Amino acid sequence: MPSCNGALATFSRGPHTLRVPRELHAVNRQRLCEQLRRQTGQGAFVVLQGGESPTRYCSDFEPVFRQESYFHWVFGVEEPDCFGALDVERGKAVVFVPKLPESYAVWMGKLHTTEHLAAKYAVDEVLYVDELADALRTRGAQTLLTLRGRNSDSGRMSKEAHFPGIEGFKVDSVTLYETIAELRVFKTPQELEVIRYTNKVSSDAHKEVMRRVRPGMFEYQLESVFLSWCYGTGGARHVSYTCICGSGTNSAVLHYGHAGAPNDRALQDGDMCLFDMGCEYYCYTSDITCSFPANGRFTADQRGVYNAVLAASTAVLAALRPGVLWPDMHRLAERIMLAALKDMGLLRGDLDAMMEARLGATFMPHGLGHFMGLDTHDVGGYLSKDPPRPTEAGLKCLRTARALQAGMVITVEPGCYFIECLLDQALESPTLSQFLVPEELKRFRHFGGVRIEDDVLITQDGHENLTQVPRTVEDIEALMAEGREAA
Amino acid sequence: MPSCNGALATFSRGPHTLRVPRELHAVNRQRLCEQLRRQTGQGAFVVLQGGESPTRYCSDFEPVFRQESYFHWVFGVEEPDCFGALDVERGKAVVFVPKLPESYAVWMGKLHTTEHLAAKYAVDEVLYVDELADALRTRGAQTLLTLRGRNSDSGRMSKEAHFPGIEGFKVDSVTLYETIAELRVFKTPQELEVIRYTNKVSSDAHKEVMRRVRPGMFEYQLESVFLSWCYGTGGARHVSYTCICGSGTNSAVLHYGHAGAPNDRALQDGDMCLFDMGCEYYCYTSDITCSFPANGRFTADQRGVYNAVLAASTAVLAALRPGVLWPDMHRLAERIMLAALKDMGLLRGDLDAMMEARLGATFMPHGLGHFMGLDTHDVGGYLSKDPPRPTEAGLKCLRTARALQAGMVITVEPGCYFIECLLDQALESPTLSQFLVPEELKRFRHFGGVRIEDDVLITQDGHENLTQVPRTVEDIEALMAEGREAA
Repeated sequence: MPSCNGALATFSRGPHTLRVPRELHAVNRQRLCEQLRRQTGQGAFVVLQGGESPTRYCSDFEPVFRQESYFHWVFGVEEPDCFGALDVERGKAVVFVPKLPESYAVWMGKLHTTEHLAAKYAVDEVLYVDELADALRTRGAQTLLTLRGRNSDSGRMSKEAHFPGIEGFKVDSVTLYETIAELRVFKTPQELEVIRYTNKVSSDAHKEVMRRVRPGMFEYQLESVFLSWCYGTGGARHVSYTCICGSGTNSAVLHYGHAGAPNDRALQDGDMCLFDMGCEYYCYTSDITCSFPANGRFTADQRGVYNAVLAASTAVLAALRPGVLWPDMHRLAERIMLAALKDMGLLRGDLDAMMEARLGATFMPHGLGHFMGLDTHDVGGYLSKDPPRPTEAGLKCLRTARALQAGMVITVEPGCYFIECLLDQALESPTLSQFLVPEELKRFRHFGGVRIEDDVLITQDGHENLTQVPRTVEDIEALMAEGREAA
Repeated sequence: MPSCNGALATFSRGPHTLRVPRELHAVNRQRLCEQLRRQTGQGAFVVLQGGESPTRYCSDFEPVFRQESYFHWVFGVEEPDCFGALDVERGKAVVFVPKLPESYAVWMGKLHTTEHLAAKYAVDEVLYVDELADALRTRGAQTLLTLRGRNSDSGRMSKEAHFPGIEGFKVDSVTLYETIAELRVFKTPQELEVIRYTNKVSSDAHKEVMRRVRPGMFEYQLESVFLSWCYGTGGARHVSYTCICGSGTNSAVLHYGHAGAPNDRALQDGDMCLFDMGCEYYCYTSDITCSFPANGRFTADQRGVYNAVLAASTAVLAALRPGVLWPDMHRLAERIMLAALKDMGLLRGDLDAMMEARLGATFMPHGLGHFMGLDTHDVGGYLSKDPPRPTEAGLKCLRTARALQAGMVITVEPGCYFIECLLDQALESPTLSQFLVPEELKRFRHFGGVRIEDDVLITQDGHENLTQVPRTVEDIEALMAEGREAA
């Protein structure tokens, strides 16, 4: 029986990788049904449409399919073109798979029975997509809860389930989205195991990169080292986002690495490097940034800026606990960093006045961090019940303004960047220029930037740092020296 | 001046990688204009819309952008959301880029001037997308030639350019598609340099994989070795298609490796392996298959099947020259392979009768090969002037039925697979079962398959094989032994 096999069903990529019990999704479904039972009447069924497998433009090139995150959260199905239904009252899950032609066995692999798939995914039943409307009817579905809402990071709407026969049901497209997004904010023990694993693999991969960095290498060659470690050692086929491998001034380009700026510069002796990379396993992400000198030894200026950011990171981590407001953590990071830059002689004047003038956004134009889970920028940042997006410089980039609660996973990623256009704007601004020491800042024009990014779990009494990479100047230099000695 | 810098404009990923002169696209444009001048009147302008950068579902995850192939062929622009116009009469090229917000400099990198981009891409002019309609008008455009046609591999329509103001022009969506698709079939010397390079990188990567294969490794770990070589050594960020890394029976699944069958099996001692992988550089593809035993030594059966496929490959390569019909090459491969299987005692009866009964499709259910270029399955296989798709088993899978001509690049990829459902169908078929020796075939049920795939250029007097990997049993065993000794 599926439910029997289901208890043993797992996902893994071999004994050297994590075994994920499919029970993870049963727990999610149970949480979802509990919430929905309070909001819906008899005959309510969640109906989700899984991801489709696109081709590139009009060609037949198919990128490797990656399941849509909400669908994965509920059903954990790895193949494209499925639907899923969840009987809210009874908690029963049915997955609907496409009926594949016989030629599938020749081209794509074994045609599995629905029984096999039900056991594999530990769901109550697997049927074919063309049975969806009938199956819902015979199971007593009256109201279908569909997913309709806007992602606050992309501004894009979710794809609501649609299938022939849906017009025979009452459709409620309001209730589900905020309920499920809110649940996704709080990670279960089963989900945390996966996120701990992605963090372990990515942490180890970052360390391997730091051991292998040499001036003269191209940024993408280190991206390749990272990818190879994550896949070959960790079984992680996907990354959570395009690798950002900035050296020199590129380390001050926040989302460097895309097709228009493709990690294609050769590292120079004396460069700072900022590498922001994370692997994905079973659709769970990781998001880690390490900053270090290309040649393995910090200069005095590099050490100064690095330690300013590290002080911000340390102060925020020490302050994390349920109840603190995320924008307050952003401000804390800014204040610590500005104080350190003042100590370095780059800034002058009163710290409170700098904060009031929002000077922090000149050096850290992004938010302190974001929820992380099935998406790197995970959902639930600005639900209707939550505090709205701040409007002040820097703070407005925060992807949530919520108070922290136990069970949230959030990135802590303070950074300090010397971005020419922002420095020029600040120098021209009467309110900001008073704090700048131009004759000192001058030599930082081509410095680039530093970011230190950890993924942390908020716990009842503080936090658990899931990321384990060297963070002090001394530990980084020691690791990089190790790599040089081994070579 | 752009046209001056243009002569020097190149694409590369460092001195260890290929420098591609942007002149490649100027040559393509010149060829295109020459053809179009015969078919169009005054004021004809080609207008193409470049690829857009999608996000994954409703999240803000952006996969690395890869330009649409027709747009790349004409303009060679690496960034998303552009348009391009080509004045057919004068041969002048204008690229239209999006006007990016100032914040782009903070998040994505330097905001380049249109002059910089014109020099980078060696085009006559770069303007902004919102100037497109005006610029066409002032340059005397009367008829816009847009790209509208169906890809014969995917069945999907190309994306025709659309922009505000297009309604002010006469639009001809008929002329361009077949003209440009036909030109893409014939590779220029500049394009061939890139395809030679992708083949060199992929060939070397395959060799590295063969050196490192060991029973007990997971298929995806060898995929990772391949990817890492292509990117780290060759600067190739993309692969041409999802890597097919089949071991054991998986080697008989033609398009193994996708999300539903994700290269996740551990290689067993005694397995055959079939690895079909190719890197992409500057949007030009490669497509190479190597087959070898997991443990580095062919068994007698493995040697027999391998040599049957190698004999087919060798015979086809020897026969390639302008004028031969591609379906005839497919039949030649089948005949040689069937003869070898008969010699092995797996088949019996008359070879002509086997061919007549289409027995070849039981063991090779795919086509012998396909055009290759900017797409792995490249365009131009079935244009309206060309011979139609055959209808017979096996042959109907051919992606072209054309006569070969010098300048075509095509894959030669005979294969022999023991696919359970096809063997069962053949055993039950009165016309096919007479040729089978079931008592011998029995032990091949879990053999898997063998494919040998080279990328070749058709030349005036034969062909040039662009792929350079060991092909004989002896050479493969020697290379794999080398890897074992080094370990």
